[in-house]
Amino acid sequence: MAEKTVADELAERHKVISVAEFFEKNRHLLGFDSGVKAMLTCVKEAVDNSLDAVEEYSHELKKKKKKPVVPDILVRIDEEEEDVYRIIVQDNGPGIIPKIIPRVFGKMLYGSKFHRLKQGRGQQGIGISAAVLYSQLTTGKPVKIISRTDPNKRPWIVELIIDTRSNEPKVIRKEEYARFNNGTGTRVELIIEGTYYDTGSKSVREYLKRTSIVNPHSRLVFIDPDGNKSVFKRVTKTNPRSPQEIKPHPWGMELGILTRMLEKTDRRTILSFLTNDFTRVGSTSAKSMLEMSKIDPRRKPDTLTLEESKDLLKSMNKVDLQRPPVDCLSPVGDVAIEKSLKMEYNPEFIAAVTRAPNVYRGYPFQVEAALAYGGDIPKKSVDVIRIANKVPLLYEKGACAVTKAVKEVDWGRYGLKESSGGLPDEPLIILVHICSVWVPFTSESKSAVATYPVIVKDMKLGLQECGRKLKTYVRKKNRIKRKAKRVNTFVKYSPEMINALSSILSKDVKKVEKIVEKTINNRYGDAIKKAKKVKEREKQGK
Amino acid sequence: MAEKTVADELAERHKVISVAEFFEKNRHLLGFDSGVKAMLTCVKEAVDNSLDAVEEYSHELKKKKKKPVVPDILVRIDEEEEDVYRIIVQDNGPGIIPKIIPRVFGKMLYGSKFHRLKQGRGQQGIGISAAVLYSQLTTGKPVKIISRTDPNKRPWIVELIIDTRSNEPKVIRKEEYARFNNGTGTRVELIIEGTYYDTGSKSVREYLKRTSIVNPHSRLVFIDPDGNKSVFKRVTKTNPRSPQEIKPHPWGMELGILTRMLEKTDRRTILSFLTNDFTRVGSTSAKSMLEMSKIDPRRKPDTLTLEESKDLLKSMNKVDLQRPPVDCLSPVGDVAIEKSLKMEYNPEFIAAVTRAPNVYRGYPFQVEAALAYGGDIPKKSVDVIRIANKVPLLYEKGACAVTKAVKEVDWGRYGLKESSGGLPDEPLIILVHICSVWVPFTSESKSAVATYPVIVKDMKLGLQECGRKLKTYVRKKNRIKRKAKRVNTFVKYSPEMINALSSILSKDVKKVEKIVEKTINNRYGDAIKKAKKVKEREKQGK
Repeated sequence: MAEKTVADELAERHKVISVAEFFEKNRHLLGFDSGVKAMLTCVKEAVDNSLDAVEEYSHELKKKKKKPVVPDILVRIDEEEEDVYRIIVQDNGPGIIPKIIPRVFGKMLYGSKFHRLKQGRGQQGIGISAAVLYSQLTTGKPVKIISRTDPNKRPWIVELIIDTRSNEPKVIRKEEYARFNNGTGTRVELIIEGTYYDTGSKSVREYLKRTSIVNPHSRLVFIDPDGNKSVFKRVTKTNPRSPQEIKPHPWGMELGILTRMLEKTDRRTILSFLTNDFTRVGSTSAKSMLEMSKIDPRRKPDTLTLEESKDLLKSMNKVDLQRPPVDCLSPVGDVAIEKSLKMEYNPEFIAAVTRAPNVYRGYPFQVEAALAYGGDIPKKSVDVIRIANKVPLLYEKGACAVTKAVKEVDWGRYGLKESSGGLPDEPLIILVHICSVWVPFTSESKSAVATYPVIVKDMKLGLQECGRKLKTYVRKKNRIKRKAKRVNTFVKYSPEMINALSSILSKDVKKVEKIVEKTINNRYGDAIKKAKKVKEREKQGK
Repeated sequence: MAEKTVADELAERHKVISVAEFFEKNRHLLGFDSGVKAMLTCVKEAVDNSLDAVEEYSHELKKKKKKPVVPDILVRIDEEEEDVYRIIVQDNGPGIIPKIIPRVFGKMLYGSKFHRLKQGRGQQGIGISAAVLYSQLTTGKPVKIISRTDPNKRPWIVELIIDTRSNEPKVIRKEEYARFNNGTGTRVELIIEGTYYDTGSKSVREYLKRTSIVNPHSRLVFIDPDGNKSVFKRVTKTNPRSPQEIKPHPWGMELGILTRMLEKTDRRTILSFLTNDFTRVGSTSAKSMLEMSKIDPRRKPDTLTLEESKDLLKSMNKVDLQRPPVDCLSPVGDVAIEKSLKMEYNPEFIAAVTRAPNVYRGYPFQVEAALAYGGDIPKKSVDVIRIANKVPLLYEKGACAVTKAVKEVDWGRYGLKESSGGLPDEPLIILVHICSVWVPFTSESKSAVATYPVIVKDMKLGLQECGRKLKTYVRKKNRIKRKAKRVNTFVKYSPEMINALSSILSKDVKKVEKIVEKTINNRYGDAIKKAKKVKEREKQGK
């Protein structure tokens, strides 16, 4: 046999890397780089899944003409020993059948949301298994899942870890279980090494509070390590609109995706492929696309050459089409956001807008923005609430499209003082929500939204719209205050004036007093009342 | 059969997601979010692989007592049509055997570097296949690889794409080939949609220039789309020290990793496991670890309970151990960095330091820092060159440990003017290099180093050390300039003085002139010469 070359020897060192091993070594990519962040990430992944599950459940029940449900989530954190916590998250969703529980929790890149164009909190199929990986890495303990899918049957309990070398679940316990709540649902228990902060901008409590603001149909109960119970109440009993799954839209389609679709489709002709496998492509548009690229409409899709596919892609982007349908999106709604902010912050003024849907890289998205001003909001404190698909983002604000949009707004134009960092220097809560069938996060930890110009622009426009409303309010308020000041000055000097008048007119002081009082009340009574109200509202904020 | 529950229906929607699909949809995570960045990323991934390959080749040749090689890399970019470019990268490495070519280029998470604790440019097994994925996504064209592993045999040519659904290569062509260079090596050709900038901080040219600075043993040839050839010359013929593979060190070991090691090891006793499967653990340290955690040294490793493993982990971190060996690291070296910077920027002053190795989360790392000042460096321009494992980082500087360290240095202390952003306002090149067996990048695109405090601190200390040297130089320079100014004033007024002296002493003016000239030359000749030199050096910089 010939002598081995160096290349032969080096070849033997090549190995397949499992995605679990990859993320085990790169766990900071998933949001597990510090104890505080790890704690939050674990809670977040479990709560996101629970909210998604209950909403999907409700959607399916409605389709079956059954009574829908609204989310009822319990989050409980117990301190097991120093820096070791048990996290419990329980929901009233449909439950998960025992057969797929191991892979849902014990295999990375496995899920129901990745392949569908539909708005959801989860999208990657990584989150909860990442939390399982982190818990076994730091405490060696398996995740425990209790789930009931049929209220007439007993729940199941499953305990498992991830075999990182193969990225497959290793089940330790799987059996029917006795205790659980009455209906269906899932309970997840993780034991992790982490750090618990009770309050602060990156605490579990703050995350739940913000979650509750943009999920006003949910009830969240939190039991902290000291056993204190907090309830984030339901503000509305109506479930939000269920997002529908959509087909891809020709805009922003990429060549590689198109050629794969051409290969895999079951359609017999290219014409039927275009009208059936895409959204917003009718027969007329399809025909003009094909005419433009000189392709016979009766051609079989998988017979197109690369050059023909390229031409087709070009014409797909040229033909005039309707925007993607928006029923794939489920915004919170301006009224609901206002209600939530009112309940949480009791400000003196709120403005919220839900903008018209837009498209980036072919994906529909929609922006909502809100400003809450004054009242109970502490003076000189600006808080930016960043939300993506109804999930609050607490980390990596510097890299986020929301931060960029907020800084680009010229707050001075809306009657607000500006600080050096581009943020207004006022008692203000700024909320921006982006929902999309695919939110472009800057990393797997899903902490920040990538700064696509069209997204930043839409956020900015939303904030400006709220800003204009706020400006009207602030101006009116300042006008009232100015007027009140004038009236006050007038009232202050009125005794002297009354004396003077009475001596000039030779009338009784009492009489003159009455006339002046009447005049003041007639002319300025409203202004005084309004000014009083403004003052009262402002005092609350102190 | 019982009625299907909602959970049953939802279960059917769950699917495995391939890692290639995942990154196809998340390509911004890999550095493909814009045309300019995509161009750079493709070149970078190919060049990184080539440099790694040649160095590894050289290392193996040395082991075989054969003549080592130094990297000779060709990078060529051709414009195929508008916004479409062909990227060619060719090296003189060992070549890749045809059997593994498909997986090396057509499977994500496959490689030789992930499982080994050894410094390398690649570490994730994603890079080059990500470039292949991007090229097929944007132009539909396969990657073309030509490789020869034995100079006496013909090279092979392979063309392939990635089947993203399965994350497996789909080979289109694989055969023996006629033309190639004389020795062994690999040539990769990618056709991508992208944007080419000829110059600028994020251009391919700048990347190659910086690569050449920290790889002074390499020769890089670049042919740009206009056909212009640039050569980045070899500054030294000595290959850098070959990094050695190491075993894990007990420091920073995690419970999950330890329990897996305990399960998989072939060692018969826990004592032999500790001394053989870790670095820096001798029999004495191992015994005291086991004693501390009350574990019988003769126990079989896989019989330890979770509690025992936890105890063992604690004592592993308590016992006094030597730091990890540093032969796993291969810094550039202060002398080589100085040489490179000198050649590239011709500054008036250079200081470089290679710090002692350190450890983060159990991984050894080493920092190098350098400052180049004045000379040909344009006035008032600070450039920060960030390098990780000899690869220049051009994006995401805001998130990078290097940027943090640079901003934390108080540049004013070293005689430099500071700008508002925390950077010095002077003609200065700041270089920071971190090498490690595992660089903690903030994302898969490997553009920024995570800000672990111990890493930032080491970078800062390195910069401060250079800063102190620079301060001495700047001070001396300023002293010389001040002295020269005094002498000049003296010389300027000397004619008057000579006249005065000659009339007072009643001596011939010529004679007095000679005496004064002699005095000036004796006392200030050196100062004048030095001042001239300083001025000349400064003029170059203008």
